[in-house]
Amino acid sequence: MPSPIDPSVIETSNAARARDHAADFASLGERLARRGLDIEALTAKVSAFTVAVPSWGVGTGGTRFARFPGRGEPRGIFEKLDDCGVIQALGRATPAVSLHIPWDKADPAELKDRAAALGLSFDAMNSNTFQDHPSDPRQPLSYKYGSLSHADPAVRAQAVEHNLETIAIGEAIGSKAITVWIADGSNFAGQSDLSRAFERYLDSMKAIYAGLPADWRIFSEHKMYEPAFYSTVVSDWGTSYMTAQELGPKAFCLVDLGHHAPNVNIEQIVARLIRASKLGGFHFNDSKYGDDDLDAGSIDPFRLFLVFNELVGAGDALERLYPAHMIDQSHNVTDPIESLIRSADEIRRAYAQALLVDRIALSGHQDGNDPLMASEVLKSAFRTDVGPILAEARLRAGGALDPIAAYRASGYREAAAAERPAVPGSGGGIV
Amino acid sequence: MPSPIDPSVIETSNAARARDHAADFASLGERLARRGLDIEALTAKVSAFTVAVPSWGVGTGGTRFARFPGRGEPRGIFEKLDDCGVIQALGRATPAVSLHIPWDKADPAELKDRAAALGLSFDAMNSNTFQDHPSDPRQPLSYKYGSLSHADPAVRAQAVEHNLETIAIGEAIGSKAITVWIADGSNFAGQSDLSRAFERYLDSMKAIYAGLPADWRIFSEHKMYEPAFYSTVVSDWGTSYMTAQELGPKAFCLVDLGHHAPNVNIEQIVARLIRASKLGGFHFNDSKYGDDDLDAGSIDPFRLFLVFNELVGAGDALERLYPAHMIDQSHNVTDPIESLIRSADEIRRAYAQALLVDRIALSGHQDGNDPLMASEVLKSAFRTDVGPILAEARLRAGGALDPIAAYRASGYREAAAAERPAVPGSGGGIV
Amino acid sequence: MPSPIDPSVIETSNAARARDHAADFASLGERLARRGLDIEALTAKVSAFTVAVPSWGVGTGGTRFARFPGRGEPRGIFEKLDDCGVIQALGRATPAVSLHIPWDKADPAELKDRAAALGLSFDAMNSNTFQDHPSDPRQPLSYKYGSLSHADPAVRAQAVEHNLETIAIGEAIGSKAITVWIADGSNFAGQSDLSRAFERYLDSMKAIYAGLPADWRIFSEHKMYEPAFYSTVVSDWGTSYMTAQELGPKAFCLVDLGHHAPNVNIEQIVARLIRASKLGGFHFNDSKYGDDDLDAGSIDPFRLFLVFNELVGAGDALERLYPAHMIDQSHNVTDPIESLIRSADEIRRAYAQALLVDRIALSGHQDGNDPLMASEVLKSAFRTDVGPILAEARLRAGGALDPIAAYRASGYREAAAAERPAVPGSGGGIV
Amino acid sequence: MPSPIDPSVIETSNAARARDHAADFASLGERLARRGLDIEALTAKVSAFTVAVPSWGVGTGGTRFARFPGRGEPRGIFEKLDDCGVIQALGRATPAVSLHIPWDKADPAELKDRAAALGLSFDAMNSNTFQDHPSDPRQPLSYKYGSLSHADPAVRAQAVEHNLETIAIGEAIGSKAITVWIADGSNFAGQSDLSRAFERYLDSMKAIYAGLPADWRIFSEHKMYEPAFYSTVVSDWGTSYMTAQELGPKAFCLVDLGHHAPNVNIEQIVARLIRASKLGGFHFNDSKYGDDDLDAGSIDPFRLFLVFNELVGAGDALERLYPAHMIDQSHNVTDPIESLIRSADEIRRAYAQALLVDRIALSGHQDGNDPLMASEVLKSAFRTDVGPILAEARLRAGGALDPIAAYRASGYREAAAAERPAVPGSGGGIV
Repeated sequence: MPSPIDPSVIETSNAARARDHAADFASLGERLARRGLDIEALTAKVSAFTVAVPSWGVGTGGTRFARFPGRGEPRGIFEKLDDCGVIQALGRATPAVSLHIPWDKADPAELKDRAAALGLSFDAMNSNTFQDHPSDPRQPLSYKYGSLSHADPAVRAQAVEHNLETIAIGEAIGSKAITVWIADGSNFAGQSDLSRAFERYLDSMKAIYAGLPADWRIFSEHKMYEPAFYSTVVSDWGTSYMTAQELGPKAFCLVDLGHHAPNVNIEQIVARLIRASKLGGFHFNDSKYGDDDLDAGSIDPFRLFLVFNELVGAGDALERLYPAHMIDQSHNVTDPIESLIRSADEIRRAYAQALLVDRIALSGHQDGNDPLMASEVLKSAFRTDVGPILAEARLRAGGALDPIAAYRASGYREAAAAERPAVPGSGGGIV
Repeated sequence: MPSPIDPSVIETSNAARARDHAADFASLGERLARRGLDIEALTAKVSAFTVAVPSWGVGTGGTRFARFPGRGEPRGIFEKLDDCGVIQALGRATPAVSLHIPWDKADPAELKDRAAALGLSFDAMNSNTFQDHPSDPRQPLSYKYGSLSHADPAVRAQAVEHNLETIAIGEAIGSKAITVWIADGSNFAGQSDLSRAFERYLDSMKAIYAGLPADWRIFSEHKMYEPAFYSTVVSDWGTSYMTAQELGPKAFCLVDLGHHAPNVNIEQIVARLIRASKLGGFHFNDSKYGDDDLDAGSIDPFRLFLVFNELVGAGDALERLYPAHMIDQSHNVTDPIESLIRSADEIRRAYAQALLVDRIALSGHQDGNDPLMASEVLKSAFRTDVGPILAEARLRAGGALDPIAAYRASGYREAAAAERPAVPGSGGGIV
Repeated sequence: MPSPIDPSVIETSNAARARDHAADFASLGERLARRGLDIEALTAKVSAFTVAVPSWGVGTGGTRFARFPGRGEPRGIFEKLDDCGVIQALGRATPAVSLHIPWDKADPAELKDRAAALGLSFDAMNSNTFQDHPSDPRQPLSYKYGSLSHADPAVRAQAVEHNLETIAIGEAIGSKAITVWIADGSNFAGQSDLSRAFERYLDSMKAIYAGLPADWRIFSEHKMYEPAFYSTVVSDWGTSYMTAQELGPKAFCLVDLGHHAPNVNIEQIVARLIRASKLGGFHFNDSKYGDDDLDAGSIDPFRLFLVFNELVGAGDALERLYPAHMIDQSHNVTDPIESLIRSADEIRRAYAQALLVDRIALSGHQDGNDPLMASEVLKSAFRTDVGPILAEARLRAGGALDPIAAYRASGYREAAAAERPAVPGSGGGIV
Repeated sequence: MPSPIDPSVIETSNAARARDHAADFASLGERLARRGLDIEALTAKVSAFTVAVPSWGVGTGGTRFARFPGRGEPRGIFEKLDDCGVIQALGRATPAVSLHIPWDKADPAELKDRAAALGLSFDAMNSNTFQDHPSDPRQPLSYKYGSLSHADPAVRAQAVEHNLETIAIGEAIGSKAITVWIADGSNFAGQSDLSRAFERYLDSMKAIYAGLPADWRIFSEHKMYEPAFYSTVVSDWGTSYMTAQELGPKAFCLVDLGHHAPNVNIEQIVARLIRASKLGGFHFNDSKYGDDDLDAGSIDPFRLFLVFNELVGAGDALERLYPAHMIDQSHNVTDPIESLIRSADEIRRAYAQALLVDRIALSGHQDGNDPLMASEVLKSAFRTDVGPILAEARLRAGGALDPIAAYRASGYREAAAAERPAVPGSGGGIV
């Protein structure tokens, strides 16, 4: 395997930046203090906030048109874990990995060992019934016309079994949740009976729910369209919410930021699901047009901040829900390790900005019908460059002040390229 | 009042078209018979299908930029009823009117008498807390910053009272339902606490629900945006569904075809609400860009057909729900009477086309994974020009074969223009 | 190769439908005659209207998530031509094929011979610089970061050369046009200098234009997004128009119906390009959400009709432009042969409906400010089931009254499946 | 009139904030210096950047549903100028006002005098043919069915005359440009002949252009929809560009940030118009759903920054174009004076952030295919809180460090409320 990041690389990189950082951190602390905010308390909260990286995210993604592989792409789950280890070593914000079965199938003990050696653990599992798995003897039937909602009970049974197997693998490696996203839907009006398909989906989900360990949660993930281009069985949060209600107390809704119709107010969906005690977690990413799976915060950073504003504002209610934070992106033109380090940082940035919101003042302006000042309370938090807090959190945890620079200095990618020959056509598979 | 439509106008108009119509009806009957369909049974079903017209729809609508009044606009509810009587006399598809309070406030007995004289009854009532009513002593407080979800309990109480008064008026005139649409929302991120505003809305709705007569239904109508341009308290069907669940068995969701995000699959929402036994009714209209309130079926007739395909396909489930059918349009450039006659016809057209769908064949293609033939089953129903059935239904009920032509021949608008002087600046108010 | 369609299959299929068809055609003729329309003249016009099928369309498409292959997929251009021959034999609306280079590279003489044997010719050529071609010695450089607009002049030169080669192949087989669609764009704000990238694209296009034969046309095809998810170099018709203006009189704009922002009024773009004498042609398909590449007319048939309403309404102007008609679809869940037969029929349907529009009456209502009747003129044309005309056109040309039924009866797909083993992973590549 | 802002109010307000501001300015200066940026040079550039306020913006706006007036609304153009004077006195970013004729018709000399007394001048004029003006003897004909593109030549002539009159008024008060936005379009497919309507529009514009003074510019403003809900004559930048090309060298395109289809990349349109030397100016505002006319920068501040990134990046090309900067917002729930002060500040903020972009580094990353670092260059500029620079620019020009606080302290609104009785129903009219 390519050498992991040598601590000395981080040290050298940090040393060159230490003085400026200290000045910036102090200056920010002083300005925040004037607003009644304690930079130490903020840094502690930010340090405690983590987000899981997706195992599939360390490979180069693609589109239906083409995939342009990067250098040194991981060829299997263990190399993927290595890459995730680098992300965590530098950024210190991503101590957990979310696996995708069957892509990441391997001996559970080996998985746990390798993860532990890298300082990683496992977050929610992901099943896959949106592709055929011709080499898997337990999945001989095709999902071309659906999986959990397929008209044929044999296909549904196969898909249910696959989910149960995914849970079993997750149990063996310490995961506590499964995310179910299905590609079931239609390309033509009439192709699918919208009602019967949903009933079949619910029946299948109940069968999976019945096999869920006592301390697990199941997340239903909605998506407006793609790969089905006319209708999707679980197309919106309303349908996802119906599902979670029907299944029971261990069922929750997962919000992928890119899975909505144009212009939809996503933080309002978050607020509704918190109210219903059904917010299970997030797939973070960003988008301009659809489910673009771009890097979190890269397109509309204010929108990401507003989602965190709801989360921080929910207070105790959120602690009871402890939603899962996971990144779900497709890295088509960048080094995935760099994108994931930076995306985790952007997510933490939004969280840190949300922590700055003066909630007493905000409530006052809201109840006093002063929209301009209410807006200004949010904007002034958003405008604050909390970069020094993010850097300090990394620094204290042993990470890099400038993790991208440190990564580039480390030569990790070059080493990976040397040891991992290109596998043309591989990869893809971005949820 | 302007003379109503003289039966002789209809007779003369029909006489000129009788032979061609008879030929077309016979020819269509023969072609349908070949597909195993009985035109008489279809005509009977279409004849029984009706849709309510909105009292506000007979005035000329406008936009925030301007309103360009038409000739002979009704100056009050009684003249509006006259116009609705003309629509029904010619089209025979719209025997009920949906009122808007306080716009249409009047002595209930007089309302009932005038309606009865015109062959009309009253469908769901509509309250109005999206405008201020400075002349109403019972509504001194402004709704500028909200109504049922306002931060101030006094405003909420006023809005609740207004809804209860609307129900009371409805009871007196034989209505059995109230539609609640609120304009509450925000124009700035932060202006409104999305969670607290929704709780306040629910509390207010519970107070209204508590005052609902035993045989009434209450419809919650969602809308994505406008007049609030950042967030709306009841922005989507998921929120509307949560509301109806929370309120109880007499609460249902109303679907306005224009109140969704771009590209949303509306018939899927209809299917979901039918499944949840919470579909309360429709506001029919059409749109290209947003809540355009254009004439039903004028922009995307296939979409309207697909909604009816869900309704007809739901069978018994729908009969138990008996959703209300109401038109809600803004007629900015046409004679509203003409638009409403034609829109009711387009809605019946979609219903008639949906009756043609071969549901046995459709289910077979769906279960057999034959999308092309499933699609073709729907398309072949949609492609059938059911115009002769619609005309025959009108004819048998005493209406006009060509109601627009008969209307123009009647001189009703000219007479109205002579008797109703223009009231510049009046009108507007389109939900 | 699988046996082509035996004429006796068509004859048998037609015989079973002849009587009903004759009745339907006669009945429609009579009804049209009452409207002053001659069904013979209409049938002749429809018969003369053709649309090209894309070579890549006869394979099963897919999405970035998966491709679910169909049975008997063609393994190369000659088998693709066989399938196109079947489409033409049954539907008689698609006598030309649009090739994609390098996918369809082969000996030109052989291509011409095979096409001629199948009654086919070649429409506009398509180049491909949106994928890497590692096995092509003339294209060693990657298009990962762009092609005609790439920052590196060597990549641009390679892409230009590829287009010139595509033209050369086209010349050898009798094509007269090239469609240039590039995937160049960005995934991040800042990734690309929007101005410089466009200049480079224009320079490259000028180099291609310089190599265009005298009697050729070059089509620039715009697309809003995908595979680039932040910006696309040729993102809208305005940019495409600028390009065509800059290049010269042989350069035109190609409109793919699925390449626009949500809600855009496509027929208005068509009208503008006709006015500018820059409408080069169409890629027909349909969509609900984005560039869904669904079957033409399957989602919003009225929209397709409105595009043809502009074309027919343009009269002489259009004849001078003679825009290319090409289908560009991705068939993910249907037999591509069936989808293409039906799509060509739907396109002809829209054309036939547009021929029914009473243009004198329409102009009169437009100039007389009678929107309702103007709308009704279009709707009454659209509502007419012109199916008998389409069938008659096929019948007279030797095709099938019910081409899907005849195709299924022919056993062609089963034969193809037997002779063409599955090639997992192949396919994809849908423009 | 209400007392203008007493300088002592500003002095008192500033005094309380002087020390903190000085510290923040110094601290920012130091951090910028480390990045090689001179805060003095930046402050000078920001000070020189101004944006015009719209006369109609100081009234409370509304929607088609209702208008909720604010206190002390201006009752005529002179009171509007007073309010604009307050905005300028406090914010020092808005020394010009954009008038709307006939709303703001008054004696030119008086207009100039009042403006001069308030330190104001006049930016581009706006004509209004989207409303009827029954009290204007020169405009007896209705624009219900169009203005510059109306089928009736008499209406077109009237609309042309109105534009020429608007120019004449503008000449008298020192304006140098006219913005033409028309509401012409259709609500039904077929209502308007898309091609003929555009020809008529071009003819009318040519007549206006012929009357344009030698040193004037004419701006054509496109808008996708509203008030027409099916088609708009000048619906997109492509049509606007065609218009400007056709008219000649004094014709340019105006970009209103809210007038586009969902998801459209606006800065790319800006880049294209710069390339074509046809960018005439901006109407700044923000939006989430459509043409929401919300406060600039309130919804997606990164998008606003990216527009300025194009402007700053264009360098000399932009100086030759000197696009007009105008705000065009509808203030429905805030005090318009506050919204305009803050919006001008947000626009300056975006400009200041764009000045921070390291363009050498950016070009390097672009040409080196390093999307992540290219994105980071933009983001690091955007993340910088340039508030101290904006405040310093105001301070040096005699404005307020915290202009909203100073405004509230001044009591201006209360004084205005006392002197300007409410005029229910007035207002509206937001372009």
